[in-house]
Amino acid sequence: MRFHTRRVVLSSALLGTIFCSLVVRGQATAQPAWSADTLQQLRQLQQAALQDDYAYQQTAHLTDNIGPRLAGSLQAAGAVEYVAEELRKLGLAVTLEKVIVPHWVRGEERAELVSYPGQVPGTQQKIVVTALASLNIATPPEGITAEVVVVNSFNELDALPREKVAGKIVIFNERFDHRMAAAGFALSAYGEAVAYRENGRERAARQGAVAALVRSAGNADFRLAHTGETGYDPKLPSIPAAAVTTEDAELLARLSAQGPVRLHLVLTPRMLPEVVSYNVVADLKGSEHPEQVVIVSGHLDSWDLGTGALDDGVGVAVAMEAAQLLKQLHLQPKRTIRVVAWMAEEMGIFGGKAYAKQHAADVANHFAAIETDLGAGHPLGINVAGDESMVQILQPVAEVLTSSGSGVVRSSDETGADIIPLKVAGVPTFSPIQDVRKYFDYHHTTADTLDKVDPSELRENAAVVAVLAYALATVNRELPRKPLPMPDWLE
Amino acid sequence: MRFHTRRVVLSSALLGTIFCSLVVRGQATAQPAWSADTLQQLRQLQQAALQDDYAYQQTAHLTDNIGPRLAGSLQAAGAVEYVAEELRKLGLAVTLEKVIVPHWVRGEERAELVSYPGQVPGTQQKIVVTALASLNIATPPEGITAEVVVVNSFNELDALPREKVAGKIVIFNERFDHRMAAAGFALSAYGEAVAYRENGRERAARQGAVAALVRSAGNADFRLAHTGETGYDPKLPSIPAAAVTTEDAELLARLSAQGPVRLHLVLTPRMLPEVVSYNVVADLKGSEHPEQVVIVSGHLDSWDLGTGALDDGVGVAVAMEAAQLLKQLHLQPKRTIRVVAWMAEEMGIFGGKAYAKQHAADVANHFAAIETDLGAGHPLGINVAGDESMVQILQPVAEVLTSSGSGVVRSSDETGADIIPLKVAGVPTFSPIQDVRKYFDYHHTTADTLDKVDPSELRENAAVVAVLAYALATVNRELPRKPLPMPDWLE
Repeated sequence: MRFHTRRVVLSSALLGTIFCSLVVRGQATAQPAWSADTLQQLRQLQQAALQDDYAYQQTAHLTDNIGPRLAGSLQAAGAVEYVAEELRKLGLAVTLEKVIVPHWVRGEERAELVSYPGQVPGTQQKIVVTALASLNIATPPEGITAEVVVVNSFNELDALPREKVAGKIVIFNERFDHRMAAAGFALSAYGEAVAYRENGRERAARQGAVAALVRSAGNADFRLAHTGETGYDPKLPSIPAAAVTTEDAELLARLSAQGPVRLHLVLTPRMLPEVVSYNVVADLKGSEHPEQVVIVSGHLDSWDLGTGALDDGVGVAVAMEAAQLLKQLHLQPKRTIRVVAWMAEEMGIFGGKAYAKQHAADVANHFAAIETDLGAGHPLGINVAGDESMVQILQPVAEVLTSSGSGVVRSSDETGADIIPLKVAGVPTFSPIQDVRKYFDYHHTTADTLDKVDPSELRENAAVVAVLAYALATVNRELPRKPLPMPDWLE
Repeated sequence: MRFHTRRVVLSSALLGTIFCSLVVRGQATAQPAWSADTLQQLRQLQQAALQDDYAYQQTAHLTDNIGPRLAGSLQAAGAVEYVAEELRKLGLAVTLEKVIVPHWVRGEERAELVSYPGQVPGTQQKIVVTALASLNIATPPEGITAEVVVVNSFNELDALPREKVAGKIVIFNERFDHRMAAAGFALSAYGEAVAYRENGRERAARQGAVAALVRSAGNADFRLAHTGETGYDPKLPSIPAAAVTTEDAELLARLSAQGPVRLHLVLTPRMLPEVVSYNVVADLKGSEHPEQVVIVSGHLDSWDLGTGALDDGVGVAVAMEAAQLLKQLHLQPKRTIRVVAWMAEEMGIFGGKAYAKQHAADVANHFAAIETDLGAGHPLGINVAGDESMVQILQPVAEVLTSSGSGVVRSSDETGADIIPLKVAGVPTFSPIQDVRKYFDYHHTTADTLDKVDPSELRENAAVVAVLAYALATVNRELPRKPLPMPDWLE
């Protein structure tokens, strides 16, 4: 099994999409993309979304009442049941589609500096760590003790002679770029940092290290360790790996610059047997082209440290809200709107991959797919993965959304990990463009909780997603489609 | 034993000082308060401080190498030895003055929601807590389980019939006022919030509660529990008490509004036998009035969660820096400058109280006392606890400090907890006025670590304290003195 980081995967796999040539499945007539009546309905939807608390209530239930929803857990199963029932209550046709998911569970996790320069005899210092998810990543129950070697980059590690690394605990101290995040490029900053969480374990193992600690791939300085999955290569020794807080990574760097530092590390996570879980798939049937599907989605699983409010309770809640608003306003789309709550995204896009396989024969009928998976910060508009011509087509929708501050439409491949398999198969994909300056303050930590969701900004996101979903389900155009080369991790 | 919160004590005990009449021990001559030469020396000191890294190096050693310095711990003892030795190296005459301190140690601490509305059967949710320090505050090793009752204030608690509280765990959900902190009134916001940490345990016990959880008296929303001491009244049942993060307090409030919530709480801190510890007292002898003393100080103990960088490693380091700069510049004060590193402030101002008793006969020779104990944010100037006339006297010093942005001199009673006993005895007290907008983001949490100290702002603080200490040790004036009524907690 190989875990993949969605952001990294997303950036690299899709680099080729933006300038590719287009396969347009039938050109539009002179008819406008949306009638004046439909545009009026889009405005109605927007206004209703901006006044509705359904998405917040759903987020609250998923996070407060159900809690963390780690793939394979009872809470994840409870969340599947809950979302399915809520969507049935709205009158949607709900199917649970099977996904076999890994079931990783956290165990004990602690670390202490046992010897270091200037230490008061008889004392130790606590280091804050949190295990990363992967196969065979635990220490023995009593832990391991070894000297640390701190590096700032893979290059720095690779430049060390093997004997300087062998038998040691490698600390990757790559810094999350705060200024990049503050300037609105948080996703780029994350991409740079998370490469170490993703690949650090393997890179350290290759050099003979006995464990790897990776500085948290996050933006906050509140002694929070950022969890996530990390790579596993069965050809390499399977060494323990954990995230260490920014504070502790810096401490280790400062102390080891003064002399030898020895660390005791205990990590006892386990990979339990695989579990049968589900994507929740709920259809609001189209009136004219019921066979054509517009997916609106988020992922239902979360990490176990927080309650998965920003990642990705809000994504599921906003997708549910789109259906709820259509029902509330008695709007029937021409194409089927399919709400999907994906399972086990965090463990490696298991739900997204399973769906693409299960629906491979029907992929041509997947007209579009939307996912929200970067929190609920104020939405600036719409990301469109594909050709500039789609940006043009969506201009009337952008005009509607301008009044709630969401009028930007841009070509971007940042459209959610779960729908990558559909995108690769040629399905046009979309997401809200969000203010993510603070997202990585909380992402994958204990602090990803309901209070981080601004109800007003969540409503703005619901407005974007509901308007976009209905627009795509009613547009009088075919959208350009272009299958991409299948990346090897998706096969 | 009764623990007191310094801020609260400080505000209430000294309310009467500002407008009190003065006892001036001998009026100034026509001679200016400082000669032109001395003012030039103050400017030299300021400029040297702004370029010196000694205070940062000391803070780094205290926090990185020694680590948390909980009163009674080996680290606290190591810190005493270290600071004494560093001050001896500077050529100061060092005395260790005995202080008997409590030795509280943290144990296991965890909490889980065991039943609550909307719970997925078979699951629990983790609640983040941290024990408060006091006598007899532990649960049994297996913990206790009880229903919670959430209140926003003491008034709300007292308005409840006793049967609604008896047998339950009281959650005090008083909110730290973020807007107050952001606007520069963080200390007022803390004063409001910390009253619940201080008195919540007793107030809940009085109503028959079986435990008290107090929302963290802090400004951050990163799932951090803020530790500290809490009250103990031997006439009341000694119930367990802990701080709970803001996120968890809000969660408990939301869930208990939906129906009964039961919590399992394990806290196993212990109060070990008292320990002999020390204030570090180091004199740089005065040339003209060696018997007259100007104290420059911070407290050496810290909480155990972080490494006590802001609270109060920087305070000790800045006091040491004042002496170091005088030695570096070969400046000899007319009065003795006494660097003091106080012990066990966090546990109830043990060092400050012991010093005042040990030096009671000599209090008239305590010309002034300075303490830094609100971090190392940019200093705006000088707090003067006492009469407006001192504000006037210090104007030439303010003029010197204006160039580093620290030119404000104001009458304020915010001059540090350890020197309250001296203030009560009539000694004029001083502290830097600091930017504390972010101080309570980190204070008393795991995140109070070296990286929170801005080296440049620390140098600015060193400049204020060194200039002020030398100014007070050379001033050609007596300062107005007025003993205050002895508060009962000080007796």
